[in-house]
Formats: sequence, C-alpha cells, structure tokens
Amino acid sequence: MTPSTPPNSADTTVTADQLATTLEALRGATPLVQCITNTVVQNWTANVLLAAGAAPAMVDNPHEAGGFARVASGLLVNLGTPQDDTVAAMRAAVAAAGAAGTPWVLDPVAAGGLAWRTDLAHELVALGPTVVRGNPSEVLALAGGTGGRGVDSTDAPEAAVDAARGLTDRVRVVAVSGEVDHVLNATRLVRLSNGHPWLTKVTGVGCALGALMAAYAACTDDPLLAASAATAHLTVAADEAAAQAQGPGSFAVHLLDALELLTPDQLASRVRVS
Amino acid sequence: MTPSTPPNSADTTVTADQLATTLEALRGATPLVQCITNTVVQNWTANVLLAAGAAPAMVDNPHEAGGFARVASGLLVNLGTPQDDTVAAMRAAVAAAGAAGTPWVLDPVAAGGLAWRTDLAHELVALGPTVVRGNPSEVLALAGGTGGRGVDSTDAPEAAVDAARGLTDRVRVVAVSGEVDHVLNATRLVRLSNGHPWLTKVTGVGCALGALMAAYAACTDDPLLAASAATAHLTVAADEAAAQAQGPGSFAVHLLDALELLTPDQLASRVRVS
Amino acid sequence: MTPSTPPNSADTTVTADQLATTLEALRGATPLVQCITNTVVQNWTANVLLAAGAAPAMVDNPHEAGGFARVASGLLVNLGTPQDDTVAAMRAAVAAAGAAGTPWVLDPVAAGGLAWRTDLAHELVALGPTVVRGNPSEVLALAGGTGGRGVDSTDAPEAAVDAARGLTDRVRVVAVSGEVDHVLNATRLVRLSNGHPWLTKVTGVGCALGALMAAYAACTDDPLLAASAATAHLTVAADEAAAQAQGPGSFAVHLLDALELLTPDQLASRVRVS
Repeated sequence: MTPSTPPNSADTTVTADQLATTLEALRGATPLVQCITNTVVQNWTANVLLAAGAAPAMVDNPHEAGGFARVASGLLVNLGTPQDDTVAAMRAAVAAAGAAGTPWVLDPVAAGGLAWRTDLAHELVALGPTVVRGNPSEVLALAGGTGGRGVDSTDAPEAAVDAARGLTDRVRVVAVSGEVDHVLNATRLVRLSNGHPWLTKVTGVGCALGALMAAYAACTDDPLLAASAATAHLTVAADEAAAQAQGPGSFAVHLLDALELLTPDQLASRVRVS
Repeated sequence: MTPSTPPNSADTTVTADQLATTLEALRGATPLVQCITNTVVQNWTANVLLAAGAAPAMVDNPHEAGGFARVASGLLVNLGTPQDDTVAAMRAAVAAAGAAGTPWVLDPVAAGGLAWRTDLAHELVALGPTVVRGNPSEVLALAGGTGGRGVDSTDAPEAAVDAARGLTDRVRVVAVSGEVDHVLNATRLVRLSNGHPWLTKVTGVGCALGALMAAYAACTDDPLLAASAATAHLTVAADEAAAQAQGPGSFAVHLLDALELLTPDQLASRVRVS
Repeated sequence: MTPSTPPNSADTTVTADQLATTLEALRGATPLVQCITNTVVQNWTANVLLAAGAAPAMVDNPHEAGGFARVASGLLVNLGTPQDDTVAAMRAAVAAAGAAGTPWVLDPVAAGGLAWRTDLAHELVALGPTVVRGNPSEVLALAGGTGGRGVDSTDAPEAAVDAARGLTDRVRVVAVSGEVDHVLNATRLVRLSNGHPWLTKVTGVGCALGALMAAYAACTDDPLLAASAATAHLTVAADEAAAQAQGPGSFAVHLLDALELLTPDQLASRVRVS
C-alpha cells in the first residue's frame, strides 16, 4: 500500500504495486492492438504503443476490421475523424470483438459538440465497451449532458464522475482525463495525479492513452486496473519527459523515450494514486 | 516603425509592432481552427497550432463539416490529398463559413500540376476565400498560368506577385511562400524574409502555415496582418530552431518548441519585414 | 571491392562503392516519388524521402493517381490501410506506371494475415512490380505460404529467401527485411547487416524504406542496386542515430538528421554488405 492510499480505500482503488505488475505483464505479452482511430493521431498512437511495449495494427477498412477484431488482443475505436468507410469498420469490429470477447475501448472524441458522431457514440456505448475514455465534456455528453466546443474540454473531471457512474450499467470502466485522472466502475474509483500541462499541447495524447488502455486490457482480467495502469504509465513517463524538454516538440520525443525506458520499480515509486 | 520599413511604405505594409500585438491576440484568444487538410500533415498541423497558441479540430467528414464551420473561429481547406468524401466536406464547410462569416484559408496544393484538383481550386477561389496561401507555381496556376510538377514550386515568388494581384478581385489576401514570403491584397504588399532552407525539408510546413493563417484571421479584422503575423511567427521560430538543430528531424522538433516559446518582444525584434 | 565482399561473389552482389555512387545519383536527381501508402506513415515517409534527398507526392485519389504515375519518377504502393478509394487509386497508378515505364515498389503489408489485402497483393504482384519489399512473413505469404499475425513478422529472413526466388518470374527484385536484410533477383543476392533494434520500435520504417526504394529505382537502371542502396542508406543512418539516441522517440528524430547528413564516403566505409 502506498502512503497516498488511505487504509479504508484499499478495496476501492488500485495499488502502486499492482500498477507495476501490470506494466510487467504488458511487456511480457506484447499485445496486438487494433486501432480504428482518427487519421490525425495514427502515427503517434502507433509509436506510443510500440514504445510502451505493445504492437499496433491500424486495420480500419470494412472488409477486414471484423475479422481482425476476432484475433486482436484488444481494440480501440476512436471517433476523431469518422468517415463512412471507417464507421462501417468500427461497427464490424465492435460486433466481432463482442462475439469473440476481445476487450475494446471507446474514445468518443468531441461527443456532444457534433451531432452525427454523438449519435454514433451513443450507439457504440449501448454495445458495451470494456472502457470508455474521454474528457469531462465527452463523458458528460454521453451520460446525457451537453458537450464542449470540440476536442478540448471545458468541464472539470470531478463534475463528470457522477455522470460517469451513470454509464456503468453499459460500460465496465469509465476513464475521465484531466489534471487528476479519474478511473471508475460501479463501485470503485481510482485517482491518478501525475502528468504535465504539455500533455495538452501535443495532439493525440488522450487518443494514444485510449489505445494503451486497450493494450493493457489484454493483459489483466480487471479493466479498472488496466485503464489505471495505462494512465499511470503514460503520465509518469510524462513527468520524466517534462523534466528533460524545452517545449511541446521535445516533450513528445522524450515522452516516447520515457514510455520505453520506464521500469516497473520506477512506476511504483513515482505514481501518485489514491 | 522598424528600420527596415521605409517611411513611404508605412501605409502599404505592416510593422513589427503590429505583428507582435497580433501574436499576443492569438495567445489570448486560443482560436478554434477547423482543418480539412491532407492526411500527410494532419498531425504536424495540429501540433503547430497547439504550440503556436491555437486549438485544432480536424472535422473533415461531410456529415459534420458544415455545421462545425459555423462555430469554428477559422477554417483551413487544403487540397493535398483530396478524396470524394473530404471534397464533399470542403464544399459544405466553405458554404457554411461564407454564410456565417468564418474566415477561411485555401491552400491549393499542387494546383496546376493535377487537373482534378485544379478545377476544384478554381471552384473554391470563386467562393471568396479570406486568404489563398500557396507556392509561386500554385498561385500562378490559379491566376491562369501553368503549374509545377507537384507540391514543390519551380517558380520564384516575385514572378507570382503580379499574378496574385489578379486574384484579389475574389480573394482578400494572397500569400506566396518562398525565400522571401510575399503577402498582398489589392493595394498593399508585405515582404517577410526570415526562415531557413530546412523549412523545405520538413513535410507540411507550408500546409501548417495555412492553418496558422486561419487561426490568426480569427484574431484581427485585417487578414493581411493575419497572414503576415502567421508567416512571421513561423519563420522567426524557424530561425531559432535552425540555430539549435543538426538536421531536418531535430529542426522540426525545435520548431514546435520555438513556436510555443517565442514572445511578442522577440518576434518584434527579430522579424525582417518590409 | 570491399573487404566484406569475397572475390567469388563479385558478380552476384553489389559493392560499397556502387552503393555510394547511387546515393550521389539520388542527391543529384531529387526524384519525385508518388506514394500511395497507409495513412499511419504518410508523414514519416514524406520526411524520410525529403531527408534522404527525394521529393514526396502523396497523390492517392482515383481521379489523379493514374495521371500522376505517368510523370512521377517512381511509385510506391503500400497496402497498410487500404480503403476502396485508395485501392482504386493503386490500380490506376500501377496500370499507368506499367505503361509509362515508371518503376514501382509494392509493399504488401500484412499479406497472409488478412484475406482481402492478400488477394489484392497477389493481383498486384501479377502486374510485375519492379521491387517487392516486405518482412519474411509477407514474402512467404505472397510466394504461397501462410502469413504472420499482422504487420510484424514471425519468420526469419533466411527462410523467406527461397520463397522470394519463386517470385522473381513476376517481380524483378525482392527485398526481405530483418536483422540482416536480403535483396535478391533471379540470380543475385545482396546481404546488408547494418541497423538497430529500435528500427522496429518506430512505426513505418519499413514502409518508408519501400518509398526510398522507389526513389532509388528512378536513379539507376539496376533495381537490385536501387533496393540495396535504399537499404544501406537507411540502415547506416540508423547506426548513427542509435549512437545518439536515448530511446525510440529520439532515435526517429536522429534518423531523419542522419539520412540528410550521411555522405557517400561515410556510406561506403560503414556499410556491411556481402
């Protein structure tokens, strides 16, 4: 148990040691993550997965997405730049993942702010993703509130926690990003507070975090631990990167290095979890 | 007035102080820039906008592009990798931007060299973009000449200035990139001469500059000043980046850092404008 | 003849001096390479081509791809993220390249592991690419074996050499990547053994190598030499980058720098070819 975890939350959060063990499991498994994600962040997402210890495969056409979701270790569906063909691929992949038991993560980018994708996000949430990962505005929109102006969020994470609880009848885990990241299911809540403001100055960090959650979800039966471990891996690496960087450009480069170099012991000693 | 601005051009160019004030306005406004741009440079463009002080949103599907253009601060339409679905999105977004008064920038990548997109570029120019940004070959092609072999230009900027003037009956501002950047409208001409040859060794610098012009156009009523401030911000940052870089890879990284770190005072003292 | 080339292989491999001369030819020609490639690696591929000394043009829509393939110096067709519209572009471009004599490279990403693209890869191989570049699993799949689980390979390069020979009735040159890269045609075999494990931790290095082979194929009449020179340029640059990098993020940045800075003399002295 870490000093930041009070005794009476032992059953409702995760420990630093559990996070470190899950990182080791990821490195041992090299899970294959199918990413149907937006074209802005495909390259960055693939490099984040590779540096972290997973293998990316961006199979996002409707001819192959379903078949691949049956054999992939995990699946990410990200609504950043949907087009008709990639939406068809999402539907095929989600159906196949559900049938095959492949864990899958939904990142409802800009849900609430744009009507077409908001409808799509609601449709996909009803199909029972393993994890929904979003910013507070997106989570509020999915839970019935109104969304922000686009990909950034104008709401605080704490405001979205109650709304996120309302999604847990369909979604096993909801992860709400922010200065403090909140990962929760119907009964448990994990707060993680590493990271740096430059994370918001590099496009696609949140999107890549969704992919990393899909990778981790293939390495443990506990999706709350998976989403928490992905968050911890990324944000503790960000602390290290920020210490070496001059600005957002060099921060992104050092972040990839740090994702690769971070050891389980370093993760356990540096993560701030409660 | 800067030493490089002769007294008799005071009414026809912009001053270093105006450029610095416009950078401050950008940082204060964090304009939301809708980018319908080519898939090669989406990631880089988003990171340039974030580092500079704007917020990117790559809403490029035909279902949402029009609606989003009504609420975005600015719009970029870039013809680098057009497909049928993104072209439909461009048409919807441009119509909505025109109706809503959203400033929009057209980057006619490879116009002249490829017939289908050249027709599209002419169609879009007729709809009255706030700014057209291109290399000399592209601007010459739009004004009725013949284009180059692709995305690079085989013509000198000076040769395109007269042609660019011919576009100002439909376009408020034309920006012609080159060793010296020329930004002009029907009566005024701004020459900016910062930058480094490595700018041509990183893909999408010109494309990102178009996006930055859309961001700046949301922060001032004078689109000539907007296009000039975007050019100054990028090229003065490039000077700083080149001083720290070993080659084009590290130059791109330092350029993002420099876009973030550049202060209005530094911009005013380093920009070469006439 | 280099020390690493035994006398009796002088007619069946290439020499370090030939590789260096071909690098000089590339820098002198700045070949224009049309890339119809996956959306994950477009940006990286363009930056690799620019740093190496070529010019990229990602013309990948069905309206323009054929026309452009007639005037491009070389063509890359990469099956990483095929969609219906880009597949139509591939077919148009390959037909035009064949008619015009434009050298073209096929990269059959994940062939064998995914049925739809495997059929497409077989269709394209039958049209006679100048070079097929893939990992061992992909080459084995094209030659009639079974493929791996996705974009990475589970087979050793040596195992694919015999299979690759079977393709040389339709393909002029086959390049099989691995710890040792094998480049071969019906009668010759070149082994290149520079490089670093971090090459597998940056997405799209193999994809970019295919583009670089298309660039080099425009600069010599010997496609075996072209594919070998591209491999040597990339992997010798990787040696230099690895010496300066901390992890895969900084490695990718230094790789671009090294591609630009590598001189023909350095290439000749550092390449390990047999």
